[in-house]
Amino acid sequence: MAKKYAFGVDIGGTTVKIGFFTVKGKLLKSWEIPTDKSQDGANILPDIAAAIKDYLAANESGLEEVEGIGMGIPGPVLADGTVNKCVNLGWGVINAAARMSDLCDGVLVRCGNDANVAALGEMWQGGGRGHSNVVMVTLGTGVGGGVIVDGKIVGGSFGAGGEIGHIKVEDDEPEFCGCGKHGCLEQYASATGIVRLAKKRLASDSAPTVLRDRENLSAKMIFDAAKAGDVVAKELVEVLGKYLGTSLSYISCVVDPEVYVIGGGVSKAGDILIDTIRKNFRESAFHASRNAKFAIAELENEAGMYGAVKLVLGE
Amino acid sequence: MAKKYAFGVDIGGTTVKIGFFTVKGKLLKSWEIPTDKSQDGANILPDIAAAIKDYLAANESGLEEVEGIGMGIPGPVLADGTVNKCVNLGWGVINAAARMSDLCDGVLVRCGNDANVAALGEMWQGGGRGHSNVVMVTLGTGVGGGVIVDGKIVGGSFGAGGEIGHIKVEDDEPEFCGCGKHGCLEQYASATGIVRLAKKRLASDSAPTVLRDRENLSAKMIFDAAKAGDVVAKELVEVLGKYLGTSLSYISCVVDPEVYVIGGGVSKAGDILIDTIRKNFRESAFHASRNAKFAIAELENEAGMYGAVKLVLGE
Repeated sequence: MAKKYAFGVDIGGTTVKIGFFTVKGKLLKSWEIPTDKSQDGANILPDIAAAIKDYLAANESGLEEVEGIGMGIPGPVLADGTVNKCVNLGWGVINAAARMSDLCDGVLVRCGNDANVAALGEMWQGGGRGHSNVVMVTLGTGVGGGVIVDGKIVGGSFGAGGEIGHIKVEDDEPEFCGCGKHGCLEQYASATGIVRLAKKRLASDSAPTVLRDRENLSAKMIFDAAKAGDVVAKELVEVLGKYLGTSLSYISCVVDPEVYVIGGGVSKAGDILIDTIRKNFRESAFHASRNAKFAIAELENEAGMYGAVKLVLGE
Repeated sequence: MAKKYAFGVDIGGTTVKIGFFTVKGKLLKSWEIPTDKSQDGANILPDIAAAIKDYLAANESGLEEVEGIGMGIPGPVLADGTVNKCVNLGWGVINAAARMSDLCDGVLVRCGNDANVAALGEMWQGGGRGHSNVVMVTLGTGVGGGVIVDGKIVGGSFGAGGEIGHIKVEDDEPEFCGCGKHGCLEQYASATGIVRLAKKRLASDSAPTVLRDRENLSAKMIFDAAKAGDVVAKELVEVLGKYLGTSLSYISCVVDPEVYVIGGGVSKAGDILIDTIRKNFRESAFHASRNAKFAIAELENEAGMYGAVKLVLGE
């Protein structure tokens, strides 16, 4: 009997999103459970397994009708499902795929890093739909990334595939990045990064701008001001676009994707962001790659569930 | 009957290297034929087909014993074997795989870009042996590259996968790269690039160095002088290593290979080159990737034949 259903699970530091899908990839139902980080996160996988089994039982179904469970995990994940320390969840080194399969009567379980899995979701049913070579860039507190080649996640040999926020773009940055280096892309091109640059810019001179003296200056305020024509805000958007567009031109010289999908909170800025990134990308890109497309992510918080279920649904 | 043999063909602008292999990947015989670029290169594939058939006939074998023919081509090659203009051979747009198969009684033919195919060869039986995630960097007249993920070439959506020589590393370079941009990696980190930098350096002051007044200054002279302790030559090697090591750190944030294989004429410099690249790589690399390995290429001119035959021998 062919299996009918599959689950896509996106494990975050606060909640776990669980999606119940048909094997054709239609999302039938999604819900969240809290992430229990007590006891080094020992309850997280049992809680998910219980939620899945309870849901199936309540719907007069069972694990025998489930093709598999895919999971996105906020940490480095090796090809066999081994998570190599996940600080966000309290985990040490565990094989999350094997453990989850044990908890679910041996059903197929596959795992991936959350940013990579979100990229797979956007490729499949989001901004990268119709393409199999996609790079997703998530502009939030940091800069995350996911690289998809021929429809598959490039996880990397040391779990660092798609860690594009840590491309070193400046030699002489005095402040530290969270990773311990100086001058990483995410120090400039994230929501946090553009606010940091804005504060430095505002302190450097007295150029008139609506951004001056705003409390709790945010990336959204800067993009809104730029759209309204504020000169200093436009300069700041250009700086972000230059760092990001140039970095993406490097990526095109490595994996040469058809489309870049831009997601995360900053992507809500829309056209002004995409246009600025694309312009700067084209100035630096190798001629063959110059017409790569740029798209805004579409699945928002659901990208992880979609990508996770795709891990067990195959081609 | 299982097939016994396969051919790996490396098409260059001057000669075509043909390798006759067992299906286990043992090279039994190799030879070269001239590349006939007359008539827009129309004779190149028929010449190769004739050479293969003649060789088989002389050895009392035939195409029915051949698993396939793999070919490396000095230009952009799409996944289906279509060559999208190959200036080096005089070709316009042709499907080289389909054409060659027609010429060889329908035998399986697969094609790849020559730099990518050489990377595959080095992964399989050269400096990257035992690894499946490998980036090869060829330091010759230019800087070539090939990216291998999970044992497969990343050709790219526009044929630009592995074009790492065109990562833009300088904003304010006045001279043009061959690609039409300014500031590409190959303007600094190739044999031509380091000589160009040396000439500028020598003209800029009168620092004492054995490189001064050398006729036909070459990359080899610069590396030899650096090994002998010449201060200016050591500076130049450091500049090359900084550009290259930093660029490879970007690549690790994208595909995160286990090993970088360094080939091409400049790689004959050996340890001084590898040590300088590795040191600079580590200074810029994301912590997870910092222990990626560096190896010198081993197959030299045969890498293309090895990689080409691997295209038709599969996993």
